Amino acid sequence: MQLALPRSYFATFLNLFRSQDADKRKKLKNAVAHIIGENPSNLRLYQLALRHSSASRETVIVGFRESNERLEYLGDAVLGMVIAEFLFKKYPYKDEGFLTEIRSRIVNREMLNGISRKIGLDRLIEYDGARTKSLPARTSMYGDALEALVGAIYLDKGFRFTRRFILKNLLSHYDIDSLVQNNANFKSRLIEWAQREGKEVRFDIIAEKGNSHYREFIAQIVINEEPFATGSGYSKKKAEQSAAEKALELLDAK
Amino acid sequence: MQLALPRSYFATFLNLFRSQDADKRKKLKNAVAHIIGENPSNLRLYQLALRHSSASRETVIVGFRESNERLEYLGDAVLGMVIAEFLFKKYPYKDEGFLTEIRSRIVNREMLNGISRKIGLDRLIEYDGARTKSLPARTSMYGDALEALVGAIYLDKGFRFTRRFILKNLLSHYDIDSLVQNNANFKSRLIEWAQREGKEVRFDIIAEKGNSHYREFIAQIVINEEPFATGSGYSKKKAEQSAAEKALELLDAK
Repeated sequence: MQLALPRSYFATFLNLFRSQDADKRKKLKNAVAHIIGENPSNLRLYQLALRHSSASRETVIVGFRESNERLEYLGDAVLGMVIAEFLFKKYPYKDEGFLTEIRSRIVNREMLNGISRKIGLDRLIEYDGARTKSLPARTSMYGDALEALVGAIYLDKGFRFTRRFILKNLLSHYDIDSLVQNNANFKSRLIEWAQREGKEVRFDIIAEKGNSHYREFIAQIVINEEPFATGSGYSKKKAEQSAAEKALELLDAK
Repeated sequence: MQLALPRSYFATFLNLFRSQDADKRKKLKNAVAHIIGENPSNLRLYQLALRHSSASRETVIVGFRESNERLEYLGDAVLGMVIAEFLFKKYPYKDEGFLTEIRSRIVNREMLNGISRKIGLDRLIEYDGARTKSLPARTSMYGDALEALVGAIYLDKGFRFTRRFILKNLLSHYDIDSLVQNNANFKSRLIEWAQREGKEVRFDIIAEKGNSHYREFIAQIVINEEPFATGSGYSKKKAEQSAAEKALELLDAK
């Protein structure tokens, strides 16, 4: 026998809240299924992957707030590995310097931001608009969420599934051949910036190491006689490019 | 009907050479089986993984010499990913900065050199002694070969096998808890070096970026008023440590 108690206002409200929540979860589940091509098994992982640090939540552990940053760390490693293997096999006669360079162009933040938008991840991210307004973090929010998504898929579906997802659903958005040819010339972009701003910019090679088989150079960007950024590479030109790229990032952030 | 030709000296020599070669392959096969716990399917991958760049060989592609460097690139990515996952699961309440830091301590070149020797990989490496003598490359030769071995195992045996190999056969040599506690203090080691050598060393924070949730600092080491190395980290202290670590590496290489 069941007791027929009058429903309290509180219970009504709670049910309404619950059904809204269930509705939201259902929507997210469908959206994730659409993106990854299979129903998620553990939806909580994807909820976390889409939670930007501005919307981080408290946990049972004092001082530890939860957002997608840990999953981003994991996804970054998974993505890096799958792309490493992809390039290793695609270019059997290219050296490791080339492979490293092309990989870094593929996982470049701008690129990841673009892919994230293309697969519709940007509309699913949970963030605090007031907190992220005009902050540099916002510019990488989409790419970060994409890496976190990869981490979530890996934990939810395992390696083979994630590898296939990366190769089929993410790399398909790239034109790898043009990425290889396109030498994003950061050095000339930096020089143009300096001319525009009336600053003096200098490129110094401050260190080199290695032997006859392998060399690494470290280049430093000096702006108005102040060291500003450094970068390394397996040739002087690469080192300068890397330093110029970092300098442009720092200037963007300011 | 077979022709019975007298064996030429050349053929005798060739047979001797071939049987020596077969003997060598058998020895390598056993040694690899002992290390990875299963017979290698494609021995050629392991031969390549153990070939240092000083002993690189010509290929059909003009200008492309083959050594373990490409496999090292692949193995580095596989190792990084497996350790990323291991730490992610071992420390569910630690942030990504902590996980990144501990991972970099685990895949630190010195550490990998040590593990490489522990599993007996150092005795299997093919290198040109005359070329590598007193070169900095030699100091990382063992760790590099270990990464290349991981790459070879991945291509030969797949992900699951490689993951288990890393967790059971490599990570077992680490004392992770003491790695976490042990703050390898590169900054004080660098200061000691400077005092010994009568040099003046300075640590500058030359840039910072980020927002209230995430910051990144870039520290620069200045030795006798000359910029020498930079490093980045999610706190000023981490950035200084990273820069000091790089400076010590550069000093080692000189």
